[in-house]
Amino acid sequence: MPVTFRTAGLGDLPHVVAMIADDAIAAARTGSYGEEHRAAFAAIEADPNNELIVAELDGELVGTMQLTYIPGIARRGAWRLQIEAVRITSALRGQGLGRKMIEWALDRGRERGCLMAQLTTDKSRRDAHRFYESLGFTASHEGYKLDLA
Amino acid sequence: MPVTFRTAGLGDLPHVVAMIADDAIAAARTGSYGEEHRAAFAAIEADPNNELIVAELDGELVGTMQLTYIPGIARRGAWRLQIEAVRITSALRGQGLGRKMIEWALDRGRERGCLMAQLTTDKSRRDAHRFYESLGFTASHEGYKLDLA
Repeated sequence: MPVTFRTAGLGDLPHVVAMIADDAIAAARTGSYGEEHRAAFAAIEADPNNELIVAELDGELVGTMQLTYIPGIARRGAWRLQIEAVRITSALRGQGLGRKMIEWALDRGRERGCLMAQLTTDKSRRDAHRFYESLGFTASHEGYKLDLA
Repeated sequence: MPVTFRTAGLGDLPHVVAMIADDAIAAARTGSYGEEHRAAFAAIEADPNNELIVAELDGELVGTMQLTYIPGIARRGAWRLQIEAVRITSALRGQGLGRKMIEWALDRGRERGCLMAQLTTDKSRRDAHRFYESLGFTASHEGYKLDLA
């Protein structure tokens, strides 16, 4: 049975939070499933330029990512596809599901009229760098973050 | 007279496009002012999670940036402030206006409930790296881009 992709429903959210947390870098900062995640889900669902996506295989959730469609004046008014919070369930990593998921995201971005895709990934994630480069992404930019809390 | 910041109106757009284009890296890809920029402006204006900002000094536009507020499941459902297309008019660079503009953006992000600010900048923009680092940003991530056209 092939992997399929769809918008996440509220019933998927505990599993999505668990997938996001199942990661060496993100574990401590994701927190256990709760009201803050439901509020964020409601904000994503209310925004036509954000989509929380899940990957399904044999009726099980096996991956997730968030897509944001960003209009902009630069690059002749081009829309951008931004990909965040990409995860494949740990037992199924390294089997090509991530590649299928990102390729699906790029097609979805093209459907939405985006002329560019962008994402940032932690400098310590060497496997992720090889993965995105193999998909044609170029590490042309520095990704800066600042805690506002 | 101090610099002030406000949401851009359609009448500011030709000047905003000119500021975005007045840059070694972006010049060729911005294009001259036209319908594509007006369509992008309409999309930004229609989206409550996007703001095109202009900086004004003595009644003249002297800077621009785009702010995007992104809800997300990661980091306990934290909203992110994303800053794109930052420009200060060439004659006034190096006088602290950019610092005032980014500090205003960070305050605006906090007002909107964002817990993190993020941006990417081309690896060749060494002055920009020093500038963002002096504001407390950390270059913790690789910024990947892919042309979808």
